[in-house]
Order: sequence, then C-alpha cells, then structure tokens
Amino acid sequence: MVEIAIMGHGVVGSGVANIITSHKQKLYSAVGEEIHLKKILDLREFPDLPYADKFTKDFDDILNDVEIRVVAEVMGGIHPAYEYTKKLLLAGKSVVTSNKELVAAKGAELLQIAKENNLNFLFEASVGGGIPIIRPINQCLVANNVMEIAGILNGTTNFILTKMIEDGMDFDAALKLAQDLGFAERNPEADVEGYDAVRKICILASLTFGKHVYPDNIHTEGITKITLEDVKFATKFDSVIKLIGDVKQLDDGKLDIFVAPMLIKKSSQLANIDNEFNGIMVRGDCTDDVVFYGKGAGSMPTASAVVADIVDCVKHLKRRKFLFWVDGSNENVLPYEQSKAAMYVRVEASAGDELKKIFGSDIKTVSNGANIAAITPVMTVKEFEEKTKDLKLLSKIRVGDL
Amino acid sequence: MVEIAIMGHGVVGSGVANIITSHKQKLYSAVGEEIHLKKILDLREFPDLPYADKFTKDFDDILNDVEIRVVAEVMGGIHPAYEYTKKLLLAGKSVVTSNKELVAAKGAELLQIAKENNLNFLFEASVGGGIPIIRPINQCLVANNVMEIAGILNGTTNFILTKMIEDGMDFDAALKLAQDLGFAERNPEADVEGYDAVRKICILASLTFGKHVYPDNIHTEGITKITLEDVKFATKFDSVIKLIGDVKQLDDGKLDIFVAPMLIKKSSQLANIDNEFNGIMVRGDCTDDVVFYGKGAGSMPTASAVVADIVDCVKHLKRRKFLFWVDGSNENVLPYEQSKAAMYVRVEASAGDELKKIFGSDIKTVSNGANIAAITPVMTVKEFEEKTKDLKLLSKIRVGDL
Repeated sequence: MVEIAIMGHGVVGSGVANIITSHKQKLYSAVGEEIHLKKILDLREFPDLPYADKFTKDFDDILNDVEIRVVAEVMGGIHPAYEYTKKLLLAGKSVVTSNKELVAAKGAELLQIAKENNLNFLFEASVGGGIPIIRPINQCLVANNVMEIAGILNGTTNFILTKMIEDGMDFDAALKLAQDLGFAERNPEADVEGYDAVRKICILASLTFGKHVYPDNIHTEGITKITLEDVKFATKFDSVIKLIGDVKQLDDGKLDIFVAPMLIKKSSQLANIDNEFNGIMVRGDCTDDVVFYGKGAGSMPTASAVVADIVDCVKHLKRRKFLFWVDGSNENVLPYEQSKAAMYVRVEASAGDELKKIFGSDIKTVSNGANIAAITPVMTVKEFEEKTKDLKLLSKIRVGDL
Repeated sequence: MVEIAIMGHGVVGSGVANIITSHKQKLYSAVGEEIHLKKILDLREFPDLPYADKFTKDFDDILNDVEIRVVAEVMGGIHPAYEYTKKLLLAGKSVVTSNKELVAAKGAELLQIAKENNLNFLFEASVGGGIPIIRPINQCLVANNVMEIAGILNGTTNFILTKMIEDGMDFDAALKLAQDLGFAERNPEADVEGYDAVRKICILASLTFGKHVYPDNIHTEGITKITLEDVKFATKFDSVIKLIGDVKQLDDGKLDIFVAPMLIKKSSQLANIDNEFNGIMVRGDCTDDVVFYGKGAGSMPTASAVVADIVDCVKHLKRRKFLFWVDGSNENVLPYEQSKAAMYVRVEASAGDELKKIFGSDIKTVSNGANIAAITPVMTVKEFEEKTKDLKLLSKIRVGDL
C-alpha cells in the first residue's frame, strides 16, 4: 500500500479524491498495490463527505507524515503551492500537479530539486486537462525532432469563438453564455486575454526544446478585439478564427513563440476543434502532424490526468522518470517583431486603394460593402507595422499555416 | 552504449535505421547514453548504404550476440517473426515490433515470455503507426474505465472512402488511385476487407480490457460493397461512411467488437479524419472522448514509434514496463448477432411501402427517385436480419454513435 495526499479540494482535488476512491480496482491492477488516500489539505470543512476524516488544515500534517510518498498539488496559484511543493520534494515526497501557473513560473527549479532528490515532479494535467500530451511528447515522440507545436489550449475562449462563428453571437454575449454555463470565470481575464494559454505553450516549449521558457515577456494576444465582422470575413477566406498558442524552432535555434488569435484554414484539423474542447498539434520531422483532442478542463478529465501521474510516481518510487529541462532566461526566444506571418487586415472600403498601394495591386481583397479585408504576404511583424503605420486598420489577425 | 539490432530492412526497418543514425543527439539526450545499431537482418544486400557492413543474413548472428540488448522486429508476417521474437526473449533480449499481425496472433504468449524473463515486449507502432496510442491508453488514461474505443485504423481504406466522398470516384477508381500513389498494395485484400483493421482493434481491446482477443472470429466487414449511391445518401443523413474498428464493454462485461463500415455524423471528430490519416477515439469514464490523429502508416512515422519503444527498452533494461494482458479464448466476446445498432438501409423505390411496414410508418426515409434509404431503430443484428429477410436490400450499413 502506498499512501498519498491531496492539497486542495476544489474542482480538480475533489475529482482526484473521487477517482482514487471509486477506481480502486482499476488502479490496483495498474500498480500492483493499493493507492491509499491518507490526507487532504483544505482550509474549508466537508463534514458530509465519506472521507471527511481525512481533511486537515495544517500543511505540516502532510509534510511530516513519513508514510505519505506522493502528493497531488491541486490548489492552483503560485503561493503557497510553490513553497509547499518545494518543501515536499526536499522532504522526499514526489509531487504531481495540475497547476500550469506553478509549472510555467517555477518548473525548471522544481524539476531540478526533484532530480537532486531522485524524485518525480509530474504535471500531465497542467496542459490539455485530460488529454494526454506531456507524456506523449516526452516518450512517444522522442524519436522526432519536434519542429512546431500549435494548439487550442484554452476551452473558454474556444467556446466563445465557436459561438461567434456558429451562432453569430458577439463577444460579450458569448462570454456571458460561457459564464452562465460555468465555462468561464466571473473574472474571465486569464482566459480571454490569453494568459492561461501562454502558460501552457510555455510549458510545452520548455519540455520540447529543453530549456525553461517564461511566459512573462512572450507575446500574448487575447480574443477581446475579435469582432463578428472578422469572423464573417474569415469564412470568405475559407478559414475560422481560433486562439492559438504556437511555438516553432527556427533554423538558428530561436523559438518563435506566442499566443494570438489566428485565421486557420477550415481544412486544418485544428479548425474543427470546437466549443470547450482543446486540440494540440505536434509537428515532428518523422511523424508529421499528430493531433491530440479532448476536453481540456473540467473536474474529472483533469483529475484523471493527475491520477495517471500519481500512478506513475507510485510505480517509480525509487527511480526518476526522465522528464526534465534546464533553466533559461528567454534568451532563446525570437523577439516578436521578428516573427513572420501573413496578416489578415480589415479597413474601411475607402482605404481599399491605400491597401493595394501598400501590399501590391495583386493582393486578394474581399468586400462586404462597408469594409475591405485582405491577407498580406508573409513578412515580419516589424515590417507589417511599418508598412501599415499610416493605414487605419480596423483589425489585424495573424494567419496560421497549420 | 547500448547495442541494438533490426530484423527486416523494408519500409519500416529502413526508417528505423535512418532515425537511429540521423537522430543520435536527440536520442542520446533522451536516454543518457548512446543507442548503437550493431546488426540488421535481411536476406537482401544493400551494398550502397553507409551502414552496409551491419547486414547479416543469419538470425543467429543477432541471437547469439550477447552485446545486443534490444531488437526491433519489423519483418512483418507471423513466421518467422514469431519464432525469432520468442527466441530473442528467451535469450534475454527485449523486443519491439511494428507487426500487428504478430501482436494480434501471439501477443499474450509473447508478453508472458517477456514477463517471465523480466524483459519488455513493446509494440507502439502496431496500431496507428506514428500516432501515440498504446502508451497513452496504458499510462495516461490509466485512471479511466475505458468504455469504448473506435477508430479509423486503416489509412488505405480511409483514403479510398475519402475519394469516393469528396471526389465522387467509385470504389474501383479510388482503389486504383490509392495503388498508383503507393497507399494500397497490389493485392489490397488485407486492407479493403478489413483484416488489417481487425488486428488493430483486437490489440487495443486486449490492452484495454486485459484479456487477449483473437481476430479470427471477430465480425469483419470491409468496404468493397460500398457504392457511390450509399456515399451520397449518407450525406442526406448528415453523415459520412468510414471504416471503423470498434470495441465497447457492455454492462455484463462482454465485448461488443467488430470492424465494419459505418455512417458517422459529420459533427463527429472521426468524420473529419480524411485521406490516408488514422484517428482513434478513446471514451473514458473520466476523460470523456479523447481523440488521437495522425499518419497511421508510412516509413518514418511508423519507424519513429518503433524507436520510441527502443528508447523505452533501453531506459528499462533491468526493469519491466507494466504492459500486459492474459491469454483469452474470445469467450468474453459478444456474438455479433447480439450486437445492437441502428442500420442504414437502401432499397428500390418500389420497396418503400414494404420498408415502412417493417420498421413503422414514422421511419424517416430519403429518396433519390430510383432508391429509398432509411435509418432503422436500434436493434440487434439478429432482429434486423429476421425483419429484413424478405426485403430486397440493396445495402445495409451500421450507424455509429461516435
């Protein structure tokens, strides 16, 4: 029997407790011994739960319990999750987490501490919720040089965009619906501004390219400026607008990494990933494109990924899994102004001539009477900004080649 | 340095040799030591290859070489792949394979021998080529009770069906095109009759439900009877026709498993998997649907999965991965006549009244003048056969709920 603990009994933590207790037999056959939930850390009380006696409000009850070998950190936020995780690793316990904020901010340091103590620090649930992605990249695609990862990494914004595309709702109405259905928080900033997605693409970039990429100065655009006009014009270019986290390694080794809304061709596999679903495309030199799709959030999907990590820790109690990256300082990140893309632009109909003068008369334009939209040739962001500095742009959206 | 060998230098084997030699640095960082290709078994000679000196025609050169710890079996076919694999495992070498025929026919026995000898027998490449699927099911989704797996498991038939659906080509013309492009063999029987797909769904069923399922008496329907009329009628039911391998565990524990063409709603993720691509949907009780998509065949994608298994063996030289199922005798397989589904049927227009008499007057029918098509209520195959025994059916195709 291996004793474990859970820190946090919110959406994910209650799911973890649920799975550990309800899937006993399945987990027993996978591990060959019982995984036993000994303690749950939460400041709240849950007197009606069948496992009410396991709750503690004191972190030290877990830290100092030598029987507990694996701890699931599902509190969210950086503090005190970071301090707790560090103490647990230093005390000889493996830690698994669903906390993308923690991994994106402190991953390299925590992986290093885990390594020095011959323990595991795993975080399958931090990207894509229940969709397997960390382990597949780390193990299954190990024989590939991964060239690019692009994903719909945030279910809330994907739900909002889907409602705009399919039902013609505007951003505010779609956000309100997402909130009413529980897909969006009352304060939706982390989702709609792309902060959640950038943490996830940074985790995938760190894992894939071996050096920590910090989200702080990565170009991050959300979806608040996307209008119904743009959604409709996208259709005329046989595309849809999706919020994409993207990282590509260039020939000189630099990472072209950002989060931004993008026009994606309808024939792309990512274009068909709708509503609250996530999808992640990994482009390997041997496999070509491989796509992973499923529910990227929610109690049970995310919890099942946390429990898969717990199982892995229990199977590797005395042996470290090879999951590691070194610290970095984003010196390997391409400045966004040097990033290259074609751009979708929309201007007043009266600015159509100006548009053609800037981008050449053979540029394909589409008009709805009031506005004209076009897709520019591929150029750096800097070139684009310079060329359009005197043009009154109603919108500009990156065009994806996915 | 760990020495390995490859048996077979065909499409997959040459890819494995290519990756091992061209991705040395990437593999070194994943394993922490060099993976060195020592010998390649093939009856042919390849004097112009840079590694021409590694070839041998004598299996014993590999079997008796104590330095070789891991062997990739990529010869295909059951004999002598089976005898060789068995001898290698008994001689203390781990074996990885892309050979679905071997795993579907002898998986339980070879896993047992590997277990007794504390070795690994891995086969990620046997299903879905370069798409990670065996490891995700075995590890990432371990906290789920998997309820159903359904997949487009054969790229050749998917390519043919896509050409029929999108370009209006008939079966023979689409098959010819697939052959010309190298997606189909000169003798396409294993693909178009569903024999390849049934091996793969049996491997997935064995892995997921823990007991070997042999393909021999599993219901297997290919796509040779699919007509352009059916493809067009499918559109009218907002569906496409796909060849699906499906396994579902029923409440009594029996496996409802088969390979058959199916009408799939266009909104399903599987409906959008086109051309030579594969897609596999795993329905877990915690994760809900997770879909894995990519190129299911081809030299480099398949070889990259073989090499990922080699890496795993090298990392676990003295320790077995937990990948196992016990032998079975298909006593847990539901007889196909008890399998339940709605059926798409097509009859001559003159038989329309008869159709309504059998299935009720409220059944939704669609007509193209000459023919009438309908989708029946859900019933067992036996009930369906009995109800329609006097009806002249032009086609009948299962309807999928995927």
